[in-house]
Amino acid sequence: MSRRILLNCDMGESFGAWRMGDDAHAMPLVNQANLACGFHASDPLTMQRTVALAVQHGVSIGAHPAYPDLVGFGRRHMACTPEEAHAFVLYQLGALEAFCHAAGSQLCYVKPHGALYNDMVKNDELLSAVLEACAAFRPGLPLMVLALADNSREKRLAELAAVPVLFEAFADRSYQPDGQLTPRREANSVHHDPEKILAQAISIARGEAFPDHVGGMLQLKADSLCVHGDNPESLAVLRRLRKALDQI
Amino acid sequence: MSRRILLNCDMGESFGAWRMGDDAHAMPLVNQANLACGFHASDPLTMQRTVALAVQHGVSIGAHPAYPDLVGFGRRHMACTPEEAHAFVLYQLGALEAFCHAAGSQLCYVKPHGALYNDMVKNDELLSAVLEACAAFRPGLPLMVLALADNSREKRLAELAAVPVLFEAFADRSYQPDGQLTPRREANSVHHDPEKILAQAISIARGEAFPDHVGGMLQLKADSLCVHGDNPESLAVLRRLRKALDQI
Amino acid sequence: MSRRILLNCDMGESFGAWRMGDDAHAMPLVNQANLACGFHASDPLTMQRTVALAVQHGVSIGAHPAYPDLVGFGRRHMACTPEEAHAFVLYQLGALEAFCHAAGSQLCYVKPHGALYNDMVKNDELLSAVLEACAAFRPGLPLMVLALADNSREKRLAELAAVPVLFEAFADRSYQPDGQLTPRREANSVHHDPEKILAQAISIARGEAFPDHVGGMLQLKADSLCVHGDNPESLAVLRRLRKALDQI
Amino acid sequence: MSRRILLNCDMGESFGAWRMGDDAHAMPLVNQANLACGFHASDPLTMQRTVALAVQHGVSIGAHPAYPDLVGFGRRHMACTPEEAHAFVLYQLGALEAFCHAAGSQLCYVKPHGALYNDMVKNDELLSAVLEACAAFRPGLPLMVLALADNSREKRLAELAAVPVLFEAFADRSYQPDGQLTPRREANSVHHDPEKILAQAISIARGEAFPDHVGGMLQLKADSLCVHGDNPESLAVLRRLRKALDQI
Repeated sequence: MSRRILLNCDMGESFGAWRMGDDAHAMPLVNQANLACGFHASDPLTMQRTVALAVQHGVSIGAHPAYPDLVGFGRRHMACTPEEAHAFVLYQLGALEAFCHAAGSQLCYVKPHGALYNDMVKNDELLSAVLEACAAFRPGLPLMVLALADNSREKRLAELAAVPVLFEAFADRSYQPDGQLTPRREANSVHHDPEKILAQAISIARGEAFPDHVGGMLQLKADSLCVHGDNPESLAVLRRLRKALDQI
Repeated sequence: MSRRILLNCDMGESFGAWRMGDDAHAMPLVNQANLACGFHASDPLTMQRTVALAVQHGVSIGAHPAYPDLVGFGRRHMACTPEEAHAFVLYQLGALEAFCHAAGSQLCYVKPHGALYNDMVKNDELLSAVLEACAAFRPGLPLMVLALADNSREKRLAELAAVPVLFEAFADRSYQPDGQLTPRREANSVHHDPEKILAQAISIARGEAFPDHVGGMLQLKADSLCVHGDNPESLAVLRRLRKALDQI
Repeated sequence: MSRRILLNCDMGESFGAWRMGDDAHAMPLVNQANLACGFHASDPLTMQRTVALAVQHGVSIGAHPAYPDLVGFGRRHMACTPEEAHAFVLYQLGALEAFCHAAGSQLCYVKPHGALYNDMVKNDELLSAVLEACAAFRPGLPLMVLALADNSREKRLAELAAVPVLFEAFADRSYQPDGQLTPRREANSVHHDPEKILAQAISIARGEAFPDHVGGMLQLKADSLCVHGDNPESLAVLRRLRKALDQI
Repeated sequence: MSRRILLNCDMGESFGAWRMGDDAHAMPLVNQANLACGFHASDPLTMQRTVALAVQHGVSIGAHPAYPDLVGFGRRHMACTPEEAHAFVLYQLGALEAFCHAAGSQLCYVKPHGALYNDMVKNDELLSAVLEACAAFRPGLPLMVLALADNSREKRLAELAAVPVLFEAFADRSYQPDGQLTPRREANSVHHDPEKILAQAISIARGEAFPDHVGGMLQLKADSLCVHGDNPESLAVLRRLRKALDQI
């Protein structure tokens, strides 16, 4: 592997008086912060503060745009048209960029959130709409998508839109043979054993195969690992993961 | 007068399925379009379309940020802190700029809406917070405020924030001797007679005095006149006003 | 036919400063007003005023609950769980009932709006969740659903929940042979010819067959016809329809 | 004192994915639960679950209506008209009552939240609008207001609206000589010492005088004490308070 794999984490997910996550402790441990933009979580003050925290720790800021669904936390599929998705992604990128710019920084990538992220996997028009929003926002702004066994679809559509792609993988999720995540409703879809999480992370970081959900082996090419740091347990795993990856 | 006075108009105030205004007819008649940013009106698709319309007609785009109050159309005073106002103005500027930028244009000025606009007149901290949001967004981005008999307060605070100021006046509103607008709840606070509106507009454009609400004469220095074009009557007046000003 | 068919109309769809519909002119012409409850349209003041208007004209008030999607006007499918749907329908029924009760009236039926209405046709769990919300709100409160060639599914699920059902048909929509509405994206899915609308209305009112979209004949058992009265054209048709039905 | 003082607590303040408070532990300790109605906090599912919890523990349910300001948690003054306040209070009462009714219970009182509560103290028209909403909702439904040294204003306006009043006091807040709470921005406005809180609670429960903020003694007539139970410290105090009051 020529370059170190990065760690990305969803952050800035508080909303008004409601706290979520432990950004203060997680921020120093990651490379990329996916920041909510007010549609599924966050609000202008929270965005301003989380951008400041990311800048303070030299963490790359990514936009984490979502369907307009605060009460559903952006996790519910909504039948938005590609035109609607293009517009609301652009809106959210701009809003976050204003805080980045005011803090002397800028958006480095876009990673859609929740149901929007999932829907892009199945819907070419939706993926293209999001890609075009990235391209319209700034040439060269990358979109982060799920690393699969075969990402030729994502590469093809991204190339049409002239948008670079970043691939992310998960250390704590079990995978189907094609690289799709095992749905959360299935048993053992999420790893809780820190050793298993670390082992999967290191395999992915090294570009090596690791066990999938059905007894086979899966190899993924990923630029970044999605991690969580919102409670003491996940922070402990994140600290070990950070140390392990720094030693590869 | 060395330069022609401009016409500015609130636009892009539809929301989802609800239509407001007649932007298609008013846009060709004005110089500056104050575009709602989703907090009191508008939504991402409406913003995208209204920006396209402004660009098509070569109209300068201004942001029209507001308190977060859709159901109250941003007309109700809200006790927001200066820190909150700074953050939500920045958010709205960024969101609108994304659409401007994608259309090959950019924000040219900021004119707060409704209760936020009114509250800035009375609250130094609030005005300074909005000025600082403009400065943080882009050096040199002007803030549009109400032209008064004495604007030394606005000039002083704007200078501290290094923000240029644009002054606007109203052709269809009656004025107090100090240049404050006569409150709408008072009789004769709004001019309905087209001749009176045109006369006041031309006086302001020429920098000449015009009658105030209490029988005196008022002189205002204004860069722009705020106009309305949301119904056939106001559009008819706007067409006459456009023609009259073009002939000064 | 033993009893006269009723006319129902979506009303109270203004939101804050935005006007929609022409309730003042349509209300005297209908029997049942489906009132928005704040999730896709309307707001507390609009609900209060529309309830007052319905009471003034002796029109039955129905709740028109929807997905929580103001900017999408409740027209976009959202992947809500049955538990979520049950709760948000109950919430909307209660909110509207407070205004009915304060005006000396009460909710007479429930007709879900937009995407929620459409999703109930395909999703048994969702339909049951809405039925159970009706039953939990008040025993005997009827749910209004689409009259089909075969409504045995709706009758079966409604019986399980002990909820009476009202069937509605459309005079201005073309039908598939099974009684489903021809999707709006297809040509000739909506009738614009007043004569055709009147003829279809009278056939449905008499329980007689009328032409479907593919050249056959369809017979529907309906308690109510859904009508529109939001512009001068639709109001003109509605007036003729009202007169024609009164003469059957 | 002829009857035992009650304990009331703000509950059901989670929103979507965001948790707030520890209702499960606090509910068994209080007599009255003030439940958020979706305008400053809560959502339909949270309301349904919190009503169920209150019913399970035999706790009286009160509505906790607020200004429409989720991101500001209803804590920011908004310049709503009395007509608007009347309508949005009625809306929120109805929405909560639907869940109470479905659970075999009913609303027992109304206690406005945050800025609405505070604004009622200063604004007769606003207080009357809320009182009239209570009366319109159900004759005899009481409104809970702040116990003052002199509550003649509240009693007079409540009598005009034919609404019973409940008076609440605070064990953990310091008081001005007139019975107004010392503003939070002042030093020592909130008691943190459990002994001080218990002593003030017991004095109020017994109808005895207790020290005010400026060195005098204050006597209040209160029906209920407002308590907090959202963290281990406040729960510990609440448990001691519950025990102490049960022994009076």
